[in-house]
Amino acid sequence: MSRQDGFVLALSGGVGGAKLALGLSRVLPADALTIVANTGDDFEHLGLAISPDLDTLLYTLSGQDNPELGWGRRGETWNFMAALEALGGDTWFRLGDGDLATHVERTRRLRAGESLSAISDDFRRRLGIAARLLPMSDDKVRTRLRTEEGWLDFQDYFVRLRCAPVICELAFVGSETARPLPDFIAALADPLLSAVVICPSNPFISIDPILAVPGIRAALRDCPAPVVAVSPIIGGKAVKGPTAKMMGELGMPVDAATVAHHYCDFLDLYIADEEDAAAVECLDVPVVLARTLMQSLADREELARTVLAAAARVRK
Amino acid sequence: MSRQDGFVLALSGGVGGAKLALGLSRVLPADALTIVANTGDDFEHLGLAISPDLDTLLYTLSGQDNPELGWGRRGETWNFMAALEALGGDTWFRLGDGDLATHVERTRRLRAGESLSAISDDFRRRLGIAARLLPMSDDKVRTRLRTEEGWLDFQDYFVRLRCAPVICELAFVGSETARPLPDFIAALADPLLSAVVICPSNPFISIDPILAVPGIRAALRDCPAPVVAVSPIIGGKAVKGPTAKMMGELGMPVDAATVAHHYCDFLDLYIADEEDAAAVECLDVPVVLARTLMQSLADREELARTVLAAAARVRK
Repeated sequence: MSRQDGFVLALSGGVGGAKLALGLSRVLPADALTIVANTGDDFEHLGLAISPDLDTLLYTLSGQDNPELGWGRRGETWNFMAALEALGGDTWFRLGDGDLATHVERTRRLRAGESLSAISDDFRRRLGIAARLLPMSDDKVRTRLRTEEGWLDFQDYFVRLRCAPVICELAFVGSETARPLPDFIAALADPLLSAVVICPSNPFISIDPILAVPGIRAALRDCPAPVVAVSPIIGGKAVKGPTAKMMGELGMPVDAATVAHHYCDFLDLYIADEEDAAAVECLDVPVVLARTLMQSLADREELARTVLAAAARVRK
Repeated sequence: MSRQDGFVLALSGGVGGAKLALGLSRVLPADALTIVANTGDDFEHLGLAISPDLDTLLYTLSGQDNPELGWGRRGETWNFMAALEALGGDTWFRLGDGDLATHVERTRRLRAGESLSAISDDFRRRLGIAARLLPMSDDKVRTRLRTEEGWLDFQDYFVRLRCAPVICELAFVGSETARPLPDFIAALADPLLSAVVICPSNPFISIDPILAVPGIRAALRDCPAPVVAVSPIIGGKAVKGPTAKMMGELGMPVDAATVAHHYCDFLDLYIADEEDAAAVECLDVPVVLARTLMQSLADREELARTVLAAAARVRK
């Protein structure tokens, strides 16, 4: 199979989504996968343009991810942070020495007038990644959260406050005027598109920012290919991160069905964990049960195969 | 002795100058030394504001200098450079992981509107340096060199081309409109100033940019304290760097006397190496011969004591 025989579009946030994206990249032909990354987490820190989800995907797909930390680079060193601390610099957001190269070089190229998408495409090629990797937009969209402490920038909430504040609302600042990446919109209407896979990422902070870009939600609804989402909830809990905590705070039932409801206007198929069979029993959308916990590389490939096989059976 | 009993002003470039500055800092009372650094070497690289001479002084005076390299930080790591290279970034100017913190934090603070002098003062305090450390100016002065290949930026010449091109002229772009740091000018007229020490730095690229700032040369001429220069030439050769090579290319005799001539309009005393006794025999300015090669820490302190004792004997 080559791109002429169809291709898959995956929407992904960071860690959990990147695991499935890696699985898809290993079971699909080299040119048959396009990954769209959330950039709602992006921010400027120490004068550097940081794109956490794009970077997690870059590092994961090139085998340079740090499995111990769950973020950043394998074999990372921390001399920059130690020296920065000695100079009185801000250290709440930890940047490894190797990771810093990504931010410094991206910032330099953005200032020189290149687009985030062009830079990301060059980076993934240089790191030997065959799959295409696109930001959802070249325009800035910034996730903010209204909490009991007031509105917070995403990284303030996520890293500095470790998701402790109770949230009541999310906003994606800039989304009203952001233009979806042309290749993203084109892919969604491409007759060669065989499936859209919504990776098991946090729906509120990883996928909703993508859906908030004008035209994307409608393009998903109108998409000729099946749209398949993989549940980030296993056994009623989030594998990692604040997905379950957020559901509760936002007044939603904390279970796998909630995620399917969240995508109800465009979802064609839902992949839920076997442990959540009861929770998803009454959903309107077709459900396939699978083992969705991705611990090993084989798990990632197996889930990717399951998702693709299930998508291939969908009749729209 | 405290500052009330007099203080010393040292003008310095990088490595050679920093060695004597360290010696001075160890034999003078904590508040009795002010060092003015050349900023003609400063440049923007990868979007970062880099001040090589200020940094060499910061690292040397705080005991964090790298004696093997002669620049950068002790115990440095290079993961940033390796990762940058993998992303196709510019690697001709090597930035260590710890060193990078200085550039990132300085750049951030400059962009936030702080002055280079305020940032440098904060950095030296945080690194436990008692001596004051000032840039010659908060305004940009950039050394350029006319060579057989045309005009070159300083770091292009110095680092990328390793001083290989033959030079015929130097220019200090921005010097015409640069304002000397007010504390620098004030120190030169301070009745408590007991000596000005021109460190054994390259006269053309480390001291001349300082002298090119309007008002400095006149203030040195009018200075009530003796102005003492230490020869960067030992036995007719430069200890390190292109000083001797430049002298030859600029049509000057390659010897210790040339440096004294270069400072003739304001120099009160010249410290030359014992090896260069013959070369400096016919100078108009008083000369003290000394062992000027600074290999050990004791050498640095010994030369500092010699310079200060000789300066104390000058009657202006």
